[in-house]
Amino acid sequence: MSFELLATDGAARRGRLTTPHGTVETPTFMPVGTQASVKAMQMRDVAATGAEVVLGNTYHLMLRPGAERVARFGGLHAFSGWNKTILTDSGGFQVMSLASLRKIDDDGVTFASHVDGSKHRLTPESAVDIQLKLGSDIQMQLDECVALPASPEAVARSVTLSLAWAARARDAFTATAPAGRLQFGIVQGGTDAAERARSAAGLIDIGFDGYAVGGLAVGEPQAEMFATLDHTVPHLPADAPHYLMGVGTPADLIGAVARGIDMFDCVMPSRAGRHGTAYTAQGRLNLKNAKWADDLEPLDPTSDCPAARDYSKAYLHHLVRVGEPLAATLLTWANIDYYQRLMRTLRDAIAAGTFTAIAAELSATWPPTPAAEPA
Amino acid sequence: MSFELLATDGAARRGRLTTPHGTVETPTFMPVGTQASVKAMQMRDVAATGAEVVLGNTYHLMLRPGAERVARFGGLHAFSGWNKTILTDSGGFQVMSLASLRKIDDDGVTFASHVDGSKHRLTPESAVDIQLKLGSDIQMQLDECVALPASPEAVARSVTLSLAWAARARDAFTATAPAGRLQFGIVQGGTDAAERARSAAGLIDIGFDGYAVGGLAVGEPQAEMFATLDHTVPHLPADAPHYLMGVGTPADLIGAVARGIDMFDCVMPSRAGRHGTAYTAQGRLNLKNAKWADDLEPLDPTSDCPAARDYSKAYLHHLVRVGEPLAATLLTWANIDYYQRLMRTLRDAIAAGTFTAIAAELSATWPPTPAAEPA
Repeated sequence: MSFELLATDGAARRGRLTTPHGTVETPTFMPVGTQASVKAMQMRDVAATGAEVVLGNTYHLMLRPGAERVARFGGLHAFSGWNKTILTDSGGFQVMSLASLRKIDDDGVTFASHVDGSKHRLTPESAVDIQLKLGSDIQMQLDECVALPASPEAVARSVTLSLAWAARARDAFTATAPAGRLQFGIVQGGTDAAERARSAAGLIDIGFDGYAVGGLAVGEPQAEMFATLDHTVPHLPADAPHYLMGVGTPADLIGAVARGIDMFDCVMPSRAGRHGTAYTAQGRLNLKNAKWADDLEPLDPTSDCPAARDYSKAYLHHLVRVGEPLAATLLTWANIDYYQRLMRTLRDAIAAGTFTAIAAELSATWPPTPAAEPA
Repeated sequence: MSFELLATDGAARRGRLTTPHGTVETPTFMPVGTQASVKAMQMRDVAATGAEVVLGNTYHLMLRPGAERVARFGGLHAFSGWNKTILTDSGGFQVMSLASLRKIDDDGVTFASHVDGSKHRLTPESAVDIQLKLGSDIQMQLDECVALPASPEAVARSVTLSLAWAARARDAFTATAPAGRLQFGIVQGGTDAAERARSAAGLIDIGFDGYAVGGLAVGEPQAEMFATLDHTVPHLPADAPHYLMGVGTPADLIGAVARGIDMFDCVMPSRAGRHGTAYTAQGRLNLKNAKWADDLEPLDPTSDCPAARDYSKAYLHHLVRVGEPLAATLLTWANIDYYQRLMRTLRDAIAAGTFTAIAAELSATWPPTPAAEPA
């Protein structure tokens, strides 16, 4: 088995995932490296935060530079210089959010590139093949994520289609993937408990190396996301990793770990960094705000992240205000570092059996309702 | 004396400048850190190229974050994290090129900020004071740079005014600057040999720690710049550093070193890097060009600069094409590194008495006429 469950504390889990590019201590947060780069960061600095997995976006990479080309380069690891684990999504989600002229049929999805209008097609099998060419350690199945709110019939139809695609994806992967590579199935079903259960059961029947909860983090309130996790995660195998896709804020992460999630990815810390916002142990700070103009303290003097430790808030404020590219680099770095520290804190708490107390402590900084976060 | 002349080879000079923040081996190229940041770079990586001086722009810094504020932060070094030598310009050149509503009188220049329209005034004395607050190691006098072409009368008037300002700047500096800090005068005079000679003589009479050639690199042909150096540099004291402001291409640097210049600054390597152009030992490369899409070679496998050594041209091409911020970081880094390697090569050649041969060799890659450079 590629996943080892090391400890539990309530529903929270401390685990270890092994891939062809190393081990991943879970719960883990995966920075997003959309186009073979974590935006504004050097991979050297991403690695220094303790990040053990970077996510690549199949949709973007199949368009530019192209999967065949990445394969000729020896895969995403050699291409980008990231030598630890890489997870790729299937491309399906971004086809639905970015591509134009998209058309789903039972066999797959046809779409036009948002870059140059060129026509492309993704099927469960071609998504496996493209991800093999990208050389990712962890693949995601092609699925269909229904837009919420949706009728019960639409939700059921998407679960049925995603399960059919899951079976085909698993067959294609089993037939072609080198040993050690992993493939995850994706639970769909919107907010419908019975459909989520049916989706999970179907995926388990097929048998994947890990199970993702999809279709969340699409604008729903945090309470609704947590409720969906409450009725979904218990259906997932305890001996496989649980991945909540596209999530989230620190409060989201803490609440989802409490509900048995092991893996996360989100553009939030990097996107926020590029827009002048820092995530720190003191909460979220808007560095654009004039109140930092004379603050000589670093973001976090106790951090061992150079971006959080070696520059004053006044300097970061100046860089943000004048539009220097270094602002994006330093704040993205500090944010990804904070997310990694948060995950380490949660991992240590689960191992020590103190998760509930630590989560309660953290909720003073990161209250569970996003609306209550500092603006 | 802060400057030691170690060797000469023809008119080319190998020297060493000592400032409160270390020694500077000359000839040297100074990356431009306009707003307390070398655009898209971390100072750690700038230092790794071997750069020993970074230039700060007084005009930008007096507007944002403001000289008083930088002084409260402990100066530019503490603010930006650059611990080696900093040279600041006087602000005058950028007042004339960027500010609106500028008005020169005999006492100084009044202008409105291009950022918010706020009114400011620079005089020879206030430019000294502001640069002292910024904490730079090397100050430039406030001068007036006449726009070319100009009438002989206008050139003469600007030389006379700049000399009057030079005397006032020197008095103010001598009265207030801590020991060890340096101040350079600026030779003006357009392309008029007699005015250049008069300007140099006047400055030497006042007595500065170094002498800059100003009013060049404003769009004139390279041959005209070299001709001006030919009739200007011989008037400068041999025992003081000679600084050619705002220059230039590798060919400019080689030709100017051959004419006795010791110091350079230019936005070219950093600006080019942000626009997808690399300066390498093989010449100038436009990484946007599709011909690099499948090139797995690094920019320079023999370089010890990570940006030039650890990434394929194909990856850099991809980053440029998709607009990833990392493209600007890596290409700026590689370019500044190449400029530093070029200066090391020239320094070694002068010390070895092989400057003419090495310059001739380099001219195969960097021919002396900019129009002949690869597009």
